[in-house]
Amino acid sequence: MKTQRFALTPGEPAGIGPDLCLLLAQHTQPQPLIVIASHVLLAERAALLGLKVSLINTTPDAWPDQPAPAGSLYVWDTPLAAPVIAGQLNAANADYVLQTLTRAGQGCLDGHFAGMITAPVHKGVINESGIAFSGHTEFLAELTHTEQVVMMLATHGLRVALVTTHLPLKDVAAAITAERLSRVTRILYNDLRSKFGLANPRILVCGLNPHAGEGGHLGREEIEVIEPALERLRAEGINLVGPLPADTLFTPKHLDHCDAVLAMYHDQGLPVLKFKGFGAAVNITLGLPIIRTSVDHGTALDLAGSGKIDSGSMDVALQTAYEMAASQSGN
Amino acid sequence: MKTQRFALTPGEPAGIGPDLCLLLAQHTQPQPLIVIASHVLLAERAALLGLKVSLINTTPDAWPDQPAPAGSLYVWDTPLAAPVIAGQLNAANADYVLQTLTRAGQGCLDGHFAGMITAPVHKGVINESGIAFSGHTEFLAELTHTEQVVMMLATHGLRVALVTTHLPLKDVAAAITAERLSRVTRILYNDLRSKFGLANPRILVCGLNPHAGEGGHLGREEIEVIEPALERLRAEGINLVGPLPADTLFTPKHLDHCDAVLAMYHDQGLPVLKFKGFGAAVNITLGLPIIRTSVDHGTALDLAGSGKIDSGSMDVALQTAYEMAASQSGN
Repeated sequence: MKTQRFALTPGEPAGIGPDLCLLLAQHTQPQPLIVIASHVLLAERAALLGLKVSLINTTPDAWPDQPAPAGSLYVWDTPLAAPVIAGQLNAANADYVLQTLTRAGQGCLDGHFAGMITAPVHKGVINESGIAFSGHTEFLAELTHTEQVVMMLATHGLRVALVTTHLPLKDVAAAITAERLSRVTRILYNDLRSKFGLANPRILVCGLNPHAGEGGHLGREEIEVIEPALERLRAEGINLVGPLPADTLFTPKHLDHCDAVLAMYHDQGLPVLKFKGFGAAVNITLGLPIIRTSVDHGTALDLAGSGKIDSGSMDVALQTAYEMAASQSGN
Repeated sequence: MKTQRFALTPGEPAGIGPDLCLLLAQHTQPQPLIVIASHVLLAERAALLGLKVSLINTTPDAWPDQPAPAGSLYVWDTPLAAPVIAGQLNAANADYVLQTLTRAGQGCLDGHFAGMITAPVHKGVINESGIAFSGHTEFLAELTHTEQVVMMLATHGLRVALVTTHLPLKDVAAAITAERLSRVTRILYNDLRSKFGLANPRILVCGLNPHAGEGGHLGREEIEVIEPALERLRAEGINLVGPLPADTLFTPKHLDHCDAVLAMYHDQGLPVLKFKGFGAAVNITLGLPIIRTSVDHGTALDLAGSGKIDSGSMDVALQTAYEMAASQSGN
């Protein structure tokens, strides 16, 4: 396997992101992994957790070529604006958080990193600082000049991508246009090929309405919007099944023969994904020119520094990024 | 355990309902179970399947007091209007189907049966015959003069009830009123107590919007409608948790401490229920003055007479009806 460097951002410094990064030092990673964070923050959190971790500073002019030895972490030191107390948000460090993301994202664009893995940020405190911020995904889309991205969650044996994400439910039906559905489907298809090594991915598409509209009796979007759009996409060579009723789609008869499910909205696709993948799900942003994976949970401010955290999702996020980068580079 | 008789309706005669009834004869049931169907139909389907089943006619003036011996079924003969070919719908028999339901439902009201279990009907062919019919649930609600019923699906370790059921997605948000939510919640609570023997059932309530609205950023129905309604219901003594984000509700942290989940709409609650309960889920109508359970699948016309069917859901539907009746009678 070719050596590829990866960037890891701990996100909100008062949350469990720093703790998750420090836990990684217990094992050797398969690739050089650079934590983009404050050295002081990591040292203080390690002391709080009673973890002995050697923090090795590194910079773009001297990247390591080998994984850090067990018990140590590579750190690209990025200074805080104010000291951090675990569990206590401080808007003064909002700019620090965004700087770590910029370093990671720009580093991917510039070829320093083969991919980036993110721990959770706290949207509220960044906005409170006066910076408009609606999430990692939107931030990275802007940084990389990407018009449309697609949110996909994955766990062992199941991938679920979403046509719409963080919309009030009342606005979902109107947002399911042929244009949006087509853009999202093409991105999903292309990324499954280029970043997951699937030559001809098979995608199951949920209907919008219960029972996928039941022939128009429970809504007409399937007939008027979704089916015609899928027909055009099939003509482009995309392997699509559906629209299928969402309540029976997630059963072995269907799932055993698919590479991804495309759900129309957040709570149609994610409850079953998180039920199946509890504690071991990863959030992947498709459509970016870079590889980006993320844990599927929040900042968990109340658990920062407690030592009572589960690193299952971080482990899957790292593993997924490594596999995607290997697949993309033909490794 | 007290002897209680139960009614079983095979539903659409060209579907797999008759097959499912005949398979039951392989084992003795714990209670006398009366199949309300055409004797001829059952005999013909048994011959098609190569099953040797003794069909014992019975009528309301001479109900059996003991379960039928293995290899036999009690039948309340209800004549067809036209012969049945497995897999071929025939509107001529729509009235027959409804007659079996009326016999079962009225028999429950009159105390002949402690509960009824239904195999799937085909809504389309009944409507085609000129009879307006929107489903078992609505039919039984009318028969029993019940204003509001609640659909709940259950499988081992999980119960999911719905505030709205077969509505186009675009109409769901407006249908979530404080009044409807309150009526549904009270029925769920009361039936969990009276029909499931739970003294103080704990109910988890989903939000309507992604992340349960995220403090109003992703929709305001939680703040304006759902939370105030739940507050009033709690004041009545109902043990409610929520509104919770649906995508993280179905994880052990929450599910390990609840008796039922109340989802706002069909595809928010049922994909995870059917994923978890694949092949062994039961549909229960709450709010009726009678006990009614049903399989969770359709007529499967293509499998009728094939011998290739899975009776898992029927077994759970029967078992659930027996348990509910025992619980209700204090057995």
